[in-house]
Amino acid sequence: MATLVVLYNKPANAADFDKHYFNKHVPLAKKIPGLKKYEVSKGTVATPGGPSDYHLVALLTFDSVADIGAAFASAEGKATAGDLANFAQAGAQLLICDTHPV
Amino acid sequence: MATLVVLYNKPANAADFDKHYFNKHVPLAKKIPGLKKYEVSKGTVATPGGPSDYHLVALLTFDSVADIGAAFASAEGKATAGDLANFAQAGAQLLICDTHPV
Repeated sequence: MATLVVLYNKPANAADFDKHYFNKHVPLAKKIPGLKKYEVSKGTVATPGGPSDYHLVALLTFDSVADIGAAFASAEGKATAGDLANFAQAGAQLLICDTHPV
Repeated sequence: MATLVVLYNKPANAADFDKHYFNKHVPLAKKIPGLKKYEVSKGTVATPGGPSDYHLVALLTFDSVADIGAAFASAEGKATAGDLANFAQAGAQLLICDTHPV
């Protein structure tokens, strides 16, 4: 399997971010071909010592890293990536991981 | 569910890191009470634009954030956290997320 880990920095307005994320971005992302599972953090993204620097973490599961590449290249993936500019102005990290159980 | 996302910075010596991680750290972590699933990235942790700043990403799944708290408080969790100093000198971020499907 492969996981796209998305780490969103804390936005200027958390309520605006959440409204856009759940009402606009999630429906766009759910159309991405090859997406097998899509999980999102709820509430504070914490560290063992307290709150983290991140507002929200999303974990998108695909069958393979190749499928993540194909997802980014798809029209639906481009629409989803393009939407980041509408709510994630504080920045986001997208990490593509070839994930295996240990 | 809840996910502990661990992001390891690039180590000085990747081979030494991997040897310790897979031979010592994974067996310690797998003893942590409440751990339901444990996935690790294989190969480069990438971004859409190229390699990321991270060497390895681990995703540890538990039933709840409370279970992650209990895991850290357990003897096995303390042994696992204590082992970080033996191989993760370059630093690691531990992110505790209350994860929900969307």
